[in-house]
Amino acid sequence: MAKFTKRGEDFSRWYSEVIDRADLAEHSDVRGSMVIKPYGYALWEKIKEILDAQFKETGHSNAYFPLFIPKSYLSKEAKHVEGFAKECAVVTHYRLKNNEDGEVVVDPEAKLEEELIVRPTSETIIWNSFHKWVQSYRDLPLKINQWANVVRWEMRTRLFLRTSEFLWQEGHTAHAKQEEAIEEAEKMLHLYADFLEEYMAIPVVRGLKTESERFAGAEETYCIEALMQDGKALQAGTSHFLGQNFAKAFDVKFANKEGKTEFVWATSWGVSTRLIGGLIMTHSDDEGLVLPPKLAPIHVAIIPIYKSKEQLEAITSKVNDLQTALKAKGISVHFDDDDNRRPGWKFAQYEAKGVPVRVAIGPRDLENNNAEVARRDTKEKSIVNWDDIENHISDLLVDIQSNLFNKANKFKEDKTTEVDTYDEFKSVLKEKGGFISAHWDGTQATENKIKEETKATIRCIPLDNKEEGGQCIKTGKFSTQRVLFAKAY
Amino acid sequence: MAKFTKRGEDFSRWYSEVIDRADLAEHSDVRGSMVIKPYGYALWEKIKEILDAQFKETGHSNAYFPLFIPKSYLSKEAKHVEGFAKECAVVTHYRLKNNEDGEVVVDPEAKLEEELIVRPTSETIIWNSFHKWVQSYRDLPLKINQWANVVRWEMRTRLFLRTSEFLWQEGHTAHAKQEEAIEEAEKMLHLYADFLEEYMAIPVVRGLKTESERFAGAEETYCIEALMQDGKALQAGTSHFLGQNFAKAFDVKFANKEGKTEFVWATSWGVSTRLIGGLIMTHSDDEGLVLPPKLAPIHVAIIPIYKSKEQLEAITSKVNDLQTALKAKGISVHFDDDDNRRPGWKFAQYEAKGVPVRVAIGPRDLENNNAEVARRDTKEKSIVNWDDIENHISDLLVDIQSNLFNKANKFKEDKTTEVDTYDEFKSVLKEKGGFISAHWDGTQATENKIKEETKATIRCIPLDNKEEGGQCIKTGKFSTQRVLFAKAY
Repeated sequence: MAKFTKRGEDFSRWYSEVIDRADLAEHSDVRGSMVIKPYGYALWEKIKEILDAQFKETGHSNAYFPLFIPKSYLSKEAKHVEGFAKECAVVTHYRLKNNEDGEVVVDPEAKLEEELIVRPTSETIIWNSFHKWVQSYRDLPLKINQWANVVRWEMRTRLFLRTSEFLWQEGHTAHAKQEEAIEEAEKMLHLYADFLEEYMAIPVVRGLKTESERFAGAEETYCIEALMQDGKALQAGTSHFLGQNFAKAFDVKFANKEGKTEFVWATSWGVSTRLIGGLIMTHSDDEGLVLPPKLAPIHVAIIPIYKSKEQLEAITSKVNDLQTALKAKGISVHFDDDDNRRPGWKFAQYEAKGVPVRVAIGPRDLENNNAEVARRDTKEKSIVNWDDIENHISDLLVDIQSNLFNKANKFKEDKTTEVDTYDEFKSVLKEKGGFISAHWDGTQATENKIKEETKATIRCIPLDNKEEGGQCIKTGKFSTQRVLFAKAY
Repeated sequence: MAKFTKRGEDFSRWYSEVIDRADLAEHSDVRGSMVIKPYGYALWEKIKEILDAQFKETGHSNAYFPLFIPKSYLSKEAKHVEGFAKECAVVTHYRLKNNEDGEVVVDPEAKLEEELIVRPTSETIIWNSFHKWVQSYRDLPLKINQWANVVRWEMRTRLFLRTSEFLWQEGHTAHAKQEEAIEEAEKMLHLYADFLEEYMAIPVVRGLKTESERFAGAEETYCIEALMQDGKALQAGTSHFLGQNFAKAFDVKFANKEGKTEFVWATSWGVSTRLIGGLIMTHSDDEGLVLPPKLAPIHVAIIPIYKSKEQLEAITSKVNDLQTALKAKGISVHFDDDDNRRPGWKFAQYEAKGVPVRVAIGPRDLENNNAEVARRDTKEKSIVNWDDIENHISDLLVDIQSNLFNKANKFKEDKTTEVDTYDEFKSVLKEKGGFISAHWDGTQATENKIKEETKATIRCIPLDNKEEGGQCIKTGKFSTQRVLFAKAY
């Protein structure tokens, strides 16, 4: 068997190999694009299913808006277009033809009058509709979500983390009052954070972005930041309070109860296939992917060990009952009786795919009425009596879920360091990595200087920050609170 | 209240008004694109949910492939590119910039070396991956499905039926043997047909396309054809046997059990948001949308009729129990106690939205322990004792579902006419419309001539055709079977 890169040797290469071995995705020959393979897509489907139900429970409806945005729409909000102009895929023609040599070429006659942008995000096209949809306070709040593909041109790509095309959901809401919009932006941030912690077993810091890291067109950007095993931070989701910027750009006004017209207040919020990158880098180990049970497409792999056909039949009939019982509990089971592969190959395969529980059962186990149960997270094995196995497995899945969260949470806490001087800051960044909690004078100039010198950025101003006077680590100026720095993806 | 167009007056205008009144979708300002509004998208979600489960049950896995296809890939299969070249949106640049006047323009420096096509369908990009995925007979069959948006440039658009961008699913499979691929193409056709009949209550004809109507790159195209209330046919889904055309274009070979390499055999199949157009045109009436219960986002609308707050409270407490009981049966209920709208307005609203059952309950009903129950399909009303109402409603939903199918099926049968002469053909086409079953000599020349002269096309050669000798209605030449002609969307 090939030797695989360990996390400690080359994290980035390890990451690519984990994806490859678990068969999650691959680079496409189309520059910057990826192919999400069935096992990787199954993870995205789980994420979608859970979040979609939560969006609906909180009063949002799904809809679908056009892929193409006229260039003039994108330009209506000045900061927005400034933020996205450099990464826009542009459609200029609508037909191909054969030239004299019989080659397929773009038909110059079929040039669009106005170029179309492939959506990098849909604020502008959606607010163009909201202009028609909102007239009265009765139409508010308007709470829409869209599951879609978006394109932001990238030169240096990385599977799941940074690709030119990615899948995401984008929520877009309009409200009568400023405070309602802020409340919505915060509520969705907490929904994301709770989802990551409860389902993905990824602990996060909830915070606000500084001005320079804000979404192009937002008044305030809320974010969740997670810590990867290499000590780098990952922005895992954002929620924006957009003020009245898009309402003004697209003239979205409503008549209030007194009959006076006002501009509406807006939010937008999104998470993407990037979450799968975060999932991989949070839990996986040198043997491959590790999945929290609540997101695993397969919970239990059962591998029969046999020589004769009779042995396989005896095992199969015993396993059938267990499968039925587990399925009734919502536990998905794969009984792998593929005759072309040896048990050792299968063990490595399910390990690489992060299947939380593996059960092996052979003729001796049949005699003793037991089986070997291995958990993926700690790799502990135990011999379990067959009469207890159903309960054992369901308890184990609960335990694996919480163990993964606790382990990741401890890692995050151990790797969060308070520093008070710039020397300390630089040395922690170099030796230990992780989040560094430090005072900052609140200016963009200082933020930029620290970034230039150390590559660390302000990930967020934590929402649960305590007020604490101090001195900026870089300038020594007065500061009222600490912020979280880190190198980031 | 505004007066609405009746089907008999102007079918096309009636169609647009039904969509508008039910709040399903709207034209976008982006040429050829539509916005699918929440109620319309809820229909698509239902369709997706049911089909997706059926695809998985039949052994298919979802995956996701890039939106952009390099021009050279599209060109690899000669007939394929010929079929799609005239409707391709082309990405030529990847950046915008500000010009000297501060306007946002396409950056000429950011021109792509090779143009990218926004996928009109994904055979080429997917077979480029299959080249890497298939080596051995162990990798087969490979059965992939993708839910995605595609773009086929259209100048004359119609909501749901013909838009430049639409949503669909596309299945793509690879098989070791020709007969397996044919079996798959047929199986998926029947899956579609059964779905339309059982869930959408739309009767269909299952058939084969003639050569001129085949998918670009297919050896054989299977289709389902439905009949709309204006007597025009709608192609509702297709399934293609692709032979080895794409395997050869993308060099997808496998080593068989004897170790010899062979090209694989392929299928692809798809249905789209066009189904929603078919749903509307099959069942809706002059009062608006009519929905089969199995696809309706809301099954029952309950409207309280009251003057005092006390009356509303009494109604609400009675309705709460019914809601709980119906929900437990999977029946979705909307209790509309919006104080801003009058009952008459609500009645018209739920009628326009096609909600299958409406319950109205007022103070006198409370006294008499009953309620008025109205069914949307026949508009019959009855007074139902409250103790029976739960069962009454669930029975009614079953009855509405089958009534809609039976009605549509009778319409289709009544509008299917056998003719034996060209004069008869033209007169039936003009006076009655619908499907016309007639003999055809099997040549493309005759098919084209009939199309030119009458605008009718061969919709399909029905799969359950009986062998029957006859004479072509146009040329008098010998024919072995009848085919189905119709004017079509």
